[in-house]
Amino acid sequence: MQKVLDYLKDNQSRFLEELCDYIRFPSVSAQPHHREDMLRCANWLENHCRQIGLTSEIVETPGHPIVVAKTKKEPGKPNFLVYGHYDVQPAEPLDLWTTEPFVPRLEGRSLFARGASDNKGQNFAHLKAIEAYLKTGTDLPCNLTVVIEGEEEVGSTHLADFLKARKDDLQCDAVVISDTGMPAKNIPALVYALRGIVALEIKVTGPSRDLHSGIFGGTVDNPAMVLSQILAGLRDKKGRITVPGLYEDVLKLSKYERQQFDKIPLNEKTYRKFLGVKELFGETGYSFLEQRSSRPTCEINGLTSGYQGHGSKTIIPSWASAKLTFRLVPNQDPRKLFKQISAHMKKACPPTVRLEITEGHHGKPYLVSPDGRLAQAALRSLRTAFGKPPILMREGGSIPIVTSFKKILGADTLLVGLALPDDNAHSPNEKFDLDIFEHGMALGASLWQELAKP
Amino acid sequence: MQKVLDYLKDNQSRFLEELCDYIRFPSVSAQPHHREDMLRCANWLENHCRQIGLTSEIVETPGHPIVVAKTKKEPGKPNFLVYGHYDVQPAEPLDLWTTEPFVPRLEGRSLFARGASDNKGQNFAHLKAIEAYLKTGTDLPCNLTVVIEGEEEVGSTHLADFLKARKDDLQCDAVVISDTGMPAKNIPALVYALRGIVALEIKVTGPSRDLHSGIFGGTVDNPAMVLSQILAGLRDKKGRITVPGLYEDVLKLSKYERQQFDKIPLNEKTYRKFLGVKELFGETGYSFLEQRSSRPTCEINGLTSGYQGHGSKTIIPSWASAKLTFRLVPNQDPRKLFKQISAHMKKACPPTVRLEITEGHHGKPYLVSPDGRLAQAALRSLRTAFGKPPILMREGGSIPIVTSFKKILGADTLLVGLALPDDNAHSPNEKFDLDIFEHGMALGASLWQELAKP
Repeated sequence: MQKVLDYLKDNQSRFLEELCDYIRFPSVSAQPHHREDMLRCANWLENHCRQIGLTSEIVETPGHPIVVAKTKKEPGKPNFLVYGHYDVQPAEPLDLWTTEPFVPRLEGRSLFARGASDNKGQNFAHLKAIEAYLKTGTDLPCNLTVVIEGEEEVGSTHLADFLKARKDDLQCDAVVISDTGMPAKNIPALVYALRGIVALEIKVTGPSRDLHSGIFGGTVDNPAMVLSQILAGLRDKKGRITVPGLYEDVLKLSKYERQQFDKIPLNEKTYRKFLGVKELFGETGYSFLEQRSSRPTCEINGLTSGYQGHGSKTIIPSWASAKLTFRLVPNQDPRKLFKQISAHMKKACPPTVRLEITEGHHGKPYLVSPDGRLAQAALRSLRTAFGKPPILMREGGSIPIVTSFKKILGADTLLVGLALPDDNAHSPNEKFDLDIFEHGMALGASLWQELAKP
Repeated sequence: MQKVLDYLKDNQSRFLEELCDYIRFPSVSAQPHHREDMLRCANWLENHCRQIGLTSEIVETPGHPIVVAKTKKEPGKPNFLVYGHYDVQPAEPLDLWTTEPFVPRLEGRSLFARGASDNKGQNFAHLKAIEAYLKTGTDLPCNLTVVIEGEEEVGSTHLADFLKARKDDLQCDAVVISDTGMPAKNIPALVYALRGIVALEIKVTGPSRDLHSGIFGGTVDNPAMVLSQILAGLRDKKGRITVPGLYEDVLKLSKYERQQFDKIPLNEKTYRKFLGVKELFGETGYSFLEQRSSRPTCEINGLTSGYQGHGSKTIIPSWASAKLTFRLVPNQDPRKLFKQISAHMKKACPPTVRLEITEGHHGKPYLVSPDGRLAQAALRSLRTAFGKPPILMREGGSIPIVTSFKKILGADTLLVGLALPDDNAHSPNEKFDLDIFEHGMALGASLWQELAKP
């Protein structure tokens, strides 16, 4: 093991350069004009996996390809799957970035770039730990399969089919994912619950074209007004979502769970300052740590209507649209929720306009007991790698694929995330902490030893 | 006079070509990247006025220049001012145009292009009538000043200063403007009332950057949601604006006025079909013709927030904004209304976000008695030019400059518009009817005779 750790230490600067190469691909899965960049990134990654000593291949899907890489399979050893994603969120709004989003910039121990933390830096730490085993000839006590997909940011559309098609080949004792957060630099965390997601887009259409607001104003409904009314009707003053039945399957937090939140060293003032808001806003009756991880939410992600350029344009816009995501918690069901939400919005829509609701991606919420052997092994590895006791956490994000791993491969997932609260995931000026990068590699080194213990 | 009419008849095809040249300038006053096009259009127009026999000049302003052209001043003759504008609305959304907005396309008797009807075609008809007088050596019974500005679509920002600076020079008995509508091809109209306008933009700012909706969702207010709530709170189910005090100065329609609306041959079904909506929506208690001309309105002209590209982006947007215009009717005051509206929106805004309200252009509503000598002369000219009896109309649009003419020059304005209801002013596929273009020139020819009568 010491050889592995020494190798990791000795090659830090090369690892950083390689990570920068990985990050430079603008692999934005949501934007069709980046399709070629997605392919280039997948090819680079596949090639890199081969260079570090894995057998690797690119698996085509109807969407973006998946990179699959493996150690030499030795019978009798346990099998683990490491999952990550090479696709990233769109970089827009570009004007809020200090420097170019796809040109990595090092400032102190922070590496700024889109995808640095979510998820390239995190999955790259695992690859480097595996490289250390393979290049130093250290025996890996398990067989590893690395699966890095290109559609996580757009709902992992084709990963389930891939898992089904290769079910036998991918059988494993557990899945390891570093794509979640940790509360602070010195507090590693094992995440035992995730929120699910329901994404949708609504479009309200009124007149067949934009109309002169002077000539026609007063006689025809304004689609932007109707959209505003429908959206305003989704949430009440106590921060509760008003969709009937939405809360009926929500699993209540236990006393033990609520106590775990107290270990997180984040006070409301610091948090508020970090977000840059004067006041927080959330569901009455829950702490902000509970609100952001264990309660359902309704968020408007984008609004579009009419004239958005310089100055004014005196029109009644022909249409208005909004992008929405709802976060779900255990035991809510995305299909059921989508139906409830759609029905509620249709009911709220007047007959003066046409309402279209387009279903987006879905992800089930996730909950697994942290008492099992493998979860305990992961907790030991976290302590070793960070030199600090880890905590148990629920997280607010959604990793829909976790439920697919359970359903298709029968495997639980160990969520050992490396993202700091100020990493700006999904925001301008995303960054990855290089100390965490080192801890992450150490975690990768320790993890296979601990997980392989009987 | 026959020489004038013959000249107009004999030169139709040349006039059309010239109008197309005029229209080809993408003179969009609201968009800074068209600044050069604005100048080129003004220069072309100034040159054209000189070619038809007027003395002409370009008057610079801090914004877009004004073109001023005059007949030779003869003492003892009455003075009239013809007003128009060479600037046009933005052409966006471009994908809804059948052909390029600034490449005039003739189909039957319709000339399609941005600005064809609003206002280039209309002011060009007047120029051609004047040309006919000057080129045939026919005595004009009055002195004429033509003022064609470049900022009508952005609130005529600098025209009032221009009128003040040249007050003595511009003294006139009345102003003539063709920039309003007529109910149908065979029903000319004199507009005796216009709505005013208050334009504003509101911006709701929450967190200092876009946030990951999974990691932070549930703890911070969503600016797009707050914006929706503020906007939704501006109008009630009966189509009434909810701003306290907003209706207190509204002049009620007289019985005679309401009877005038009955002469307009437009039924609700045709109107609905024309707009492309299943159902109309307006203030309870008023017909749609009353709603669109004689009642205040609140319209959202545009919405902007968060991610608007392909697919989804799971963020809480940092900010959300809306462009709004309120239409005012006699005797509402724009300054008072802006204050009432701002106060109402500030009150509706929660402390979790920051609200900015940016004041846009203002225009007072306009009302003038149609019984006067000049109004009666205009009505006779309309009858002559169209061969049909004109009607008296209130119009929903705003021409803020009309109140400036009254205030600064002391002159009433005769609104003899040439826009048909289906001209798509401010919309994609704007057009101008060439029969109306001919009637408009005939109107220009007759008008100076009638107006000059004692």
